[in-house]
Amino acid sequence: FDPEWRIFARSASDDKGPILMLLTALDALRMRNEEPPFHLKVILDFEEEQGSPHLPAAVVKYRKALACDALLIFDGPRHPSNLPTLSFGARGIATLTLTVYGPRVPQHSGHYGNWAPNPAMRLAQLLASMKDAAGRVTIPGFYDGIEIDEETQAILAAVPDDEAAIMRKLGIAAPDSVGRSLQEALQYPSLNIRGMASGWVGEKVRTIVPATAVAEIDIRLVKESDPERLLQLVREHIEGQGYYVTEQEPTEEERLTHPRICRFESSISYGAFRTPVHSSVGRWLSRALVKAFGREPVKKRTSGGSVPISPFVNTLGVPAVGVPTVNPDNNQHSPNENIRLGNYRDGIQTIYSILTEPWNPNR
Amino acid sequence: FDPEWRIFARSASDDKGPILMLLTALDALRMRNEEPPFHLKVILDFEEEQGSPHLPAAVVKYRKALACDALLIFDGPRHPSNLPTLSFGARGIATLTLTVYGPRVPQHSGHYGNWAPNPAMRLAQLLASMKDAAGRVTIPGFYDGIEIDEETQAILAAVPDDEAAIMRKLGIAAPDSVGRSLQEALQYPSLNIRGMASGWVGEKVRTIVPATAVAEIDIRLVKESDPERLLQLVREHIEGQGYYVTEQEPTEEERLTHPRICRFESSISYGAFRTPVHSSVGRWLSRALVKAFGREPVKKRTSGGSVPISPFVNTLGVPAVGVPTVNPDNNQHSPNENIRLGNYRDGIQTIYSILTEPWNPNR
Repeated sequence: FDPEWRIFARSASDDKGPILMLLTALDALRMRNEEPPFHLKVILDFEEEQGSPHLPAAVVKYRKALACDALLIFDGPRHPSNLPTLSFGARGIATLTLTVYGPRVPQHSGHYGNWAPNPAMRLAQLLASMKDAAGRVTIPGFYDGIEIDEETQAILAAVPDDEAAIMRKLGIAAPDSVGRSLQEALQYPSLNIRGMASGWVGEKVRTIVPATAVAEIDIRLVKESDPERLLQLVREHIEGQGYYVTEQEPTEEERLTHPRICRFESSISYGAFRTPVHSSVGRWLSRALVKAFGREPVKKRTSGGSVPISPFVNTLGVPAVGVPTVNPDNNQHSPNENIRLGNYRDGIQTIYSILTEPWNPNR
Repeated sequence: FDPEWRIFARSASDDKGPILMLLTALDALRMRNEEPPFHLKVILDFEEEQGSPHLPAAVVKYRKALACDALLIFDGPRHPSNLPTLSFGARGIATLTLTVYGPRVPQHSGHYGNWAPNPAMRLAQLLASMKDAAGRVTIPGFYDGIEIDEETQAILAAVPDDEAAIMRKLGIAAPDSVGRSLQEALQYPSLNIRGMASGWVGEKVRTIVPATAVAEIDIRLVKESDPERLLQLVREHIEGQGYYVTEQEPTEEERLTHPRICRFESSISYGAFRTPVHSSVGRWLSRALVKAFGREPVKKRTSGGSVPISPFVNTLGVPAVGVPTVNPDNNQHSPNENIRLGNYRDGIQTIYSILTEPWNPNR
């Protein structure tokens, strides 16, 4: 078959494909009368796309049954180059909703513009106070604990990103400068405005001073980030800008007492995880992939997205590594989801090679 | 009848009531066999609520027929105190839509947060650069030409605003500080964010880097403000912040050339007008109102709202003064529009008194 052929089907790549790769690799072992040189425990979470609401409790309950030396995650696409890939970490995520208050209800901008405080301008000023022009968070302590040493730099530099191509695809002339590269940027926690709203725009526009302005923020966490601490830093920064911070809708008394009020609603979804690239599990997986493909895999120190792996890592105390196999252009979660046959074959080979690679934690 | 009684009806106050006040005042003159000591020309614009799209051209066409010494506008509510009121000016209005660009389409905030420029943060920084914490525009030249001299200060201070009551009504603890009072704030052009949007908020929130961020701005103009000049100042300020400014959707080439792109769409609705409070028409109307009510009227140097009067003022070269008569709580444009009978009676008396006051431009 032509490796470029594709099977189009819902969940072809995410995540029925990888499940069948594992089953096929096990069939291949049986056909050859081979056995993996280690025990295998398989977890299938059918609620992963809903954020795995029951997984953490199940991991705690069955921690003894799940005890192991390493956790491999067969999910997600390979690096955009579609080269064999290992993913040693993922960012965690916390979210934050900030609401800044103006007049109780929208006011005529002629009668009260220049006098009634404008919550959209206040919110703009507040958000602007959190980052510099290059996109770096300026709140003291936000990046504390993150060090990109020479070894780490070498790991990041080895990822074959074509940043010029990504910029063309995204339609941007230059990226933000949180790191010196995309891979380095992903080693830092983010503070991303994912949504912002005040008053009305476009056809619904009205000449008013809006009543409120809202910013939805997501904070992608790295291993060094304690989400409680980061949220507390943001909260203290807002207070430092002269705001009274509350978690509820302000009361009448609060409205008439505090010139600046910010509602602060936060939620911590889950933390980050990161397994050292040069750990024994990392070296073991690299050997397996070199055996299969004759070249070192792409090693991503931290993937940008968030996956709910930290419950395993924290509860079971095991290193976790992602082994993505499907094609990057698989359209997961979207129309025309597909799996490339070449990736399906490579995926079987990847898993077969791992299942036949002797586990030696000292090597 | 009880002056507190009200008639509830669509356009009772805005603006059938004042038309009937004029007709009733003319009936009263006829009953007493009196005639106004001057000629009267009456203009009724039935498209005023649609922004008077045909009025300016009609004024130009019939400028000879409309030639006069002064223009009185019987529209709008009295000062919130419901005392007899004269309004000597109104702000004009221009609008501005700013769009700041991020990635071509929204991007996964995990994969590209910290790297793909976030247009919401960029817009926040851009807007924040335009005002200080007290709400004053910091763009050099924006307030040029405006002087609040002692005479003006006295006029503004004589308006019996109950600012504490307005703050309670609006639910705010402190106003912006463009002027030292609400009346003084209205003497300056405004730069008001009337709407702002980027990505999604609330139930629709998604963990993305948004593609665009939009701010809808209205600029209320005063007589000293040349709207072309103010818009140009804002545009130059945006360029000074490192932006490539365009009036269209950016092209592919522009996207890949300019790290910061801002679309700038502006529209000038109409200018401001202001008639000197101590002018002959001002003194004449004050005499008429003192004759009717035994006290000096509230004299508003500039009303906050915008009315399309500048075509008359500019084309006909005559002073214009608003003579509002209806109750401030008339709910105009809203459910339960009403007119208070006491105001209806006072309005007839106001117009009768004006129609019988000798016109003496030298007094």
